[in-house]
Amino acid sequence: MKSIFPTGSVGLVQAQSHTFEQALVLASGRVLERYELVYETYGTLNADGSNAVLICHALSGHHHAAGKHSEDDSRPGWWDHYIGPGKAINTDEFFVLSINNLGGCHGSTGPTSINPKSQRPWGSDFPTLRVRDWVETQKRLADLLGINKWAAVVGGSLGGMQAMRWALEYPRRVGHCVAIASAMKLTAQNIAFNQTARQAIMADPQFLSGYYLEQNKVPSSGLAVARMIGHITYLSDDGMGEKFGRELRSGSFEQGIDEPLEFEIESYLRHQSESFSHSFDANTYILMTRALDYFDLAREYNNDAVAAFNRAHCQFLVISFTTDWRFSPARSQEIVRALLHAKKPVTYAEIDSAFGHDAFLIPNERYNRVFSAYMKNVASEINSEGPGLKNDHVVGDEI
Amino acid sequence: MKSIFPTGSVGLVQAQSHTFEQALVLASGRVLERYELVYETYGTLNADGSNAVLICHALSGHHHAAGKHSEDDSRPGWWDHYIGPGKAINTDEFFVLSINNLGGCHGSTGPTSINPKSQRPWGSDFPTLRVRDWVETQKRLADLLGINKWAAVVGGSLGGMQAMRWALEYPRRVGHCVAIASAMKLTAQNIAFNQTARQAIMADPQFLSGYYLEQNKVPSSGLAVARMIGHITYLSDDGMGEKFGRELRSGSFEQGIDEPLEFEIESYLRHQSESFSHSFDANTYILMTRALDYFDLAREYNNDAVAAFNRAHCQFLVISFTTDWRFSPARSQEIVRALLHAKKPVTYAEIDSAFGHDAFLIPNERYNRVFSAYMKNVASEINSEGPGLKNDHVVGDEI
Repeated sequence: MKSIFPTGSVGLVQAQSHTFEQALVLASGRVLERYELVYETYGTLNADGSNAVLICHALSGHHHAAGKHSEDDSRPGWWDHYIGPGKAINTDEFFVLSINNLGGCHGSTGPTSINPKSQRPWGSDFPTLRVRDWVETQKRLADLLGINKWAAVVGGSLGGMQAMRWALEYPRRVGHCVAIASAMKLTAQNIAFNQTARQAIMADPQFLSGYYLEQNKVPSSGLAVARMIGHITYLSDDGMGEKFGRELRSGSFEQGIDEPLEFEIESYLRHQSESFSHSFDANTYILMTRALDYFDLAREYNNDAVAAFNRAHCQFLVISFTTDWRFSPARSQEIVRALLHAKKPVTYAEIDSAFGHDAFLIPNERYNRVFSAYMKNVASEINSEGPGLKNDHVVGDEI
Repeated sequence: MKSIFPTGSVGLVQAQSHTFEQALVLASGRVLERYELVYETYGTLNADGSNAVLICHALSGHHHAAGKHSEDDSRPGWWDHYIGPGKAINTDEFFVLSINNLGGCHGSTGPTSINPKSQRPWGSDFPTLRVRDWVETQKRLADLLGINKWAAVVGGSLGGMQAMRWALEYPRRVGHCVAIASAMKLTAQNIAFNQTARQAIMADPQFLSGYYLEQNKVPSSGLAVARMIGHITYLSDDGMGEKFGRELRSGSFEQGIDEPLEFEIESYLRHQSESFSHSFDANTYILMTRALDYFDLAREYNNDAVAAFNRAHCQFLVISFTTDWRFSPARSQEIVRALLHAKKPVTYAEIDSAFGHDAFLIPNERYNRVFSAYMKNVASEINSEGPGLKNDHVVGDEI
């Protein structure tokens, strides 16, 4: 029987999970006595555990990054364009691990899980998380799987923040840090958009102070508005214009029409956001946007990003997209400048794209070429270096 | 007794109103049998009625553009920086008329008024309006006041759209058209933001399909979210950064804090939007954003802006602001290009400002200089030309 999967697909995949029974002290000081992490792996871990790549997801992401859960799945994982045999993150070379972050709503312990103390869903009692908490949980899973050092930690947006935090928290355990469409901290405007999204959720009377699940409610209208804000701002003005222009869904602009007309973009946005609002958890959305807002790579280094990156021992790939205005190229250039001042090897590429922040998820030839070339070097380092704890600093190729 | 008003203020002002009993056929085909317009005037109309300037307001504006209603008012009218004795729109020279648009919520007939048929507030039964409907009502008021021709029709944003529509609908009745931070039509992104704002309002259970007033409710949470979206997007990223940065309202980022931290920008936004949500009408907000979305200057001219502007007989001043990304300089340049192709006299200035779209409301030296110089020319034309219907085309100064 012929496979229904195209060349380059990891094919059928299955989520796994592990329950950690060792208490986790969070950045907030609160303690989770036990928690479960759901994850997927693609490719095979080599004998010395040196070929592992960690994928860190963004705001609304999850562990299902590549392949399909069943042949009937209409869409593969969220980063299927870039993970698979022969792809940028080549599963013929790498063992890829993708985790649903703690606090998520796709299987890992989070606000929708049962709080053992109350025997009700955590809701808004779930602890506030910081990016470093995710690094800690990811490290424990690495220990469990026998990964002493990541060949690379890779992520876009909030995922890039995790990758950079890894490079500072566990400098000897990261070979390469790939931060795509990311930033060392959000701007006031970015925080304001996130705040508006949270406000839309909290203003929904079905939010019930965050305890909606135990009353069998879901604040889907509020979450839909939050998603619309995200959707618009993660796309570019030009990208939206190209895709939708000012086309009407039906009807015409002729005079004599009193019914509200609807543009294509309106109907698209409403459809997308409604479907999201029934598949994502509102408390997780709040928790993830807060982690984004609070992240400030250099804060505990006297706001000196160079001092922060001085701790790192890995090489860096930084990628930005021209029309991304929420994580603009200027934010990536700040990362690159700090790395250069800290004398760390860094490769930087600014990719032409009309698709704003979402570009990091979308097929793009040059992006793919840069990303693939870099990861190919990572793979050849592993093959030539042998066992995992070695890490000679080589200045990254200028691509 | 010394005046409490600074030099350059029009001082104490009072709103006036007129009820029009002649039925108005709207662009939608619906008919308003009677309607009231509230307006203010500053300065004195000269004997031949040739020194009148019409101020057209934007999305959330109203008739109170300059001076104060009482000495205790904490703030003057919304364009007090630019209207008054010796100011850009010099009330020693001009008779200034500022109207609350039909459909507004500051006294003119709109969704909060009583529908004579039902004897209940109109709510969402109030007709859909187009920019041309406002031009028509403004023309009727001009007739009433004995103004045959405007020395200038002036507006920012949605106000600029009205000014341009005036130039096409009544070409012989406009001497100068001043379109500030405006556009010939909105982009898909702009429509999407407006749609999200409307969605936030309609998702509020107190919206009650738009019939909230008759049930003594107000969808203030939804309107607050709508306002937050407006507030963020009408400011620039840099402007917000300068004003708020990432400062916390209280507390610190130290680890060990589980309570959600609040940034200054969050508290500012919430405060601003809450106060707005209790002073503005949600149906008016929906109506005004729809008028913005539907506006397309060239639609009925085969989408040929040059053909549209061929109709005009006035001179044009077009102003844009560098960091305005909802009505970007590129949109103003489209207007200027079309005008040049139509061989119409136009002066264009792109003003450096950190304050995004809101810049058109804010003191700015160069903006003031350009605006004042242009209006001074308008004033001297009136003085040298005499009676109002003359209008020699003079190529605008390059400022």
